[in-house]
Amino acid sequence: MAVAFELRCRECGRSYGNAPLSICEDCFTPLEVFCDLEAARGEFTREKIAAGPTSMWRYKALLPVAEDFEPVTPAGWTPLLKAPNLGRRIGANNLYIKNDAVCLPTLSFKDRVVAVALASAKAFGFDTVGCSSTGNLANAVAAQAARMGLKTFILVPADLEAAKILNTQVYGANLVRIDGNYDHVNRLCSQIADRYHWGFVNVNLRPYYAEGSKSVGFEIAEQLGWRLPDNVVVPMAGGSLIRKIHKAFRELVALGLVEDKHVRFFGAQATGCSPIAAAVKAGRTEIEPQRPSTIARSLAIGNPADGRYAAALIQETGGYAEDVSDVELVSAIQELAETEGVFTETAGGVTTAVTARLYAHGRIHPDELTVTCITGNGLKTTDALQGSYELEQAVRPRLADFEAYVEEKKFQHELVLEGSYAR
Amino acid sequence: MAVAFELRCRECGRSYGNAPLSICEDCFTPLEVFCDLEAARGEFTREKIAAGPTSMWRYKALLPVAEDFEPVTPAGWTPLLKAPNLGRRIGANNLYIKNDAVCLPTLSFKDRVVAVALASAKAFGFDTVGCSSTGNLANAVAAQAARMGLKTFILVPADLEAAKILNTQVYGANLVRIDGNYDHVNRLCSQIADRYHWGFVNVNLRPYYAEGSKSVGFEIAEQLGWRLPDNVVVPMAGGSLIRKIHKAFRELVALGLVEDKHVRFFGAQATGCSPIAAAVKAGRTEIEPQRPSTIARSLAIGNPADGRYAAALIQETGGYAEDVSDVELVSAIQELAETEGVFTETAGGVTTAVTARLYAHGRIHPDELTVTCITGNGLKTTDALQGSYELEQAVRPRLADFEAYVEEKKFQHELVLEGSYAR
Repeated sequence: MAVAFELRCRECGRSYGNAPLSICEDCFTPLEVFCDLEAARGEFTREKIAAGPTSMWRYKALLPVAEDFEPVTPAGWTPLLKAPNLGRRIGANNLYIKNDAVCLPTLSFKDRVVAVALASAKAFGFDTVGCSSTGNLANAVAAQAARMGLKTFILVPADLEAAKILNTQVYGANLVRIDGNYDHVNRLCSQIADRYHWGFVNVNLRPYYAEGSKSVGFEIAEQLGWRLPDNVVVPMAGGSLIRKIHKAFRELVALGLVEDKHVRFFGAQATGCSPIAAAVKAGRTEIEPQRPSTIARSLAIGNPADGRYAAALIQETGGYAEDVSDVELVSAIQELAETEGVFTETAGGVTTAVTARLYAHGRIHPDELTVTCITGNGLKTTDALQGSYELEQAVRPRLADFEAYVEEKKFQHELVLEGSYAR
Repeated sequence: MAVAFELRCRECGRSYGNAPLSICEDCFTPLEVFCDLEAARGEFTREKIAAGPTSMWRYKALLPVAEDFEPVTPAGWTPLLKAPNLGRRIGANNLYIKNDAVCLPTLSFKDRVVAVALASAKAFGFDTVGCSSTGNLANAVAAQAARMGLKTFILVPADLEAAKILNTQVYGANLVRIDGNYDHVNRLCSQIADRYHWGFVNVNLRPYYAEGSKSVGFEIAEQLGWRLPDNVVVPMAGGSLIRKIHKAFRELVALGLVEDKHVRFFGAQATGCSPIAAAVKAGRTEIEPQRPSTIARSLAIGNPADGRYAAALIQETGGYAEDVSDVELVSAIQELAETEGVFTETAGGVTTAVTARLYAHGRIHPDELTVTCITGNGLKTTDALQGSYELEQAVRPRLADFEAYVEEKKFQHELVLEGSYAR
């Protein structure tokens, strides 16, 4: 069983069937996948979902992929962690982390969108795929395309973090560094997709690609025991993820899988690239493009394709958007790791710092059930922590030297003196 | 429902109840956890397991943790991937990858053993824990202890990879670099554990810790549809993992969860530290310690605690052990990534290269169901790939420049000329 789906213009409603297209020819608005949920109502039950695979493919029937598509890569189904330790520090009594820092297979939520995009690439008969990327997407496309036997061209800004570049090359993808920022790279990809008829996951396959983000929302609801949270805090780059989580919640309500509930949506950006947050703070939906200047590269999209839709959603639901400095995001990376054992990349630092501020400013009530979305892994942006930790002098492997070192450092001194063992 | 368990000496059988001990006082043999499976037989069914959490805790009843222990960190339940692409390259028709490169929460199989060790640390009342580590273990202890609110001291060889050090410090652990190799560090930890009464997961908590590895075996059997494979290929450092996978299979047979079957066990080491492989090749079980010299640091244990037991198991089951050079392991990292989209660390390169050789030498029949165990993530040992990839000149963001670049590079030239789009 799968729902029927097709592309339509978000504004004028013109229908395009299913094709590798992303923009309405009439009004130049982004196209969106529309699913006919009627067929699934009553058919797609909690029990059937629970019996599915432990990956986002348990929701395959609600994603725009062919019914006979056989996924070869498990993706998604990441933990929803209760966060009492972080909560105590920031004044949150009912906080959860949706932890896509450990998303399969390449450790960011981009694995979800790529999984759906490559399914549609197969359906459209492309044998070469690609993307423009700030890093995580490149990793996800390279890995999943390798396993699916697709040829791959990936274009990235030349100044990308080394770990993200290596983590793309190792899968055998053709990686091309572009002398420009993400917006330059993205424009070039559009031209290449047209010229060579390649399937660029975030260009001509973008409407399908974006639907993969719905799986974050599906999983949150299921992992909360089939209910919706009061609030969701979501990082914003192009502005698509926050919209799709909202869409997922609406679909679950329409299917009768969760009770209806008003959910407020909050957006997080780095101050050095915060066009959507600026719009929300000014009470408008029009986006003024910015020239990105932040270490949170995976959020550094100065002219976000879905920016005005994200800004509108946040305001319509009574949420808010905030932005934090690079210094704040680095501290938040450390705080999240120290409290909950979750090591996230710069984008996750942004989301965590924004979440803390939303509580501090009283925009979220401490008792409300709030989910904060961590979207990538800290091992990919270790540069951000350079200088945060000293590499201590090595100690000789003798007990006396260890004791002298601990005494000198005075760390956790009371433990050393008193011991800590109690049966 | 949980099985009863206690420590016993592997050789003389002396019982020790449950305590933070690792060596028999009488004969200096490692202690082992013995589980009384009778209580679980018929009680612990496939259905109950399937209804459990999607983590290794679905097997909690078969692990040495208190019945009322509430895990706060999902760990394990990693994908078992069919590997047809790698299989074609190395002549394997029925090959699977157990992919602990994406093990939760810190991307190595060490998360499994730490999960059980910290549960026992809680049970014994320790409030400070630690380990000696070649890196992955440090990451796992630091992250899980942070979330459990335990204080942490971690001792590592001073020359450890930078990514593994940072990925420990970020969780707020006290990291102490020791001027020596792993065996030196390990000895020092024994002394510290005695002196301060701290819970060192791989020292005084070692018997409990090691049991966590059984979850790899449980998962393989369940993911194969409740059956055992013909062969398993396992990397060997201390020699514990391979034993525990065998133990897990035997427990499943004893519980009536899988049909009995003869499984052959194969071990993988780097040539620069191959004391167990050397013993197997010589047809003996005694281990001659080696001074490690390999980039596969996570396998670089020159005097493996469970070495002779691993060597005996391999020979008893009719398996074999192989070792590969550092050059071969780097190639194997690339081959695994290019074929199956799995980016592993140096240890996984060793296992993949050894697996290939076992097929090449006819030690494994192409049609036999074989599982190769990948135990860690490539993002932690990116140094190993330094120099493997050129960082190409950046290209200006214009179609003409892209075309000129592609022409010059001549990569995948036919695609460029003919296009690849077919509806």
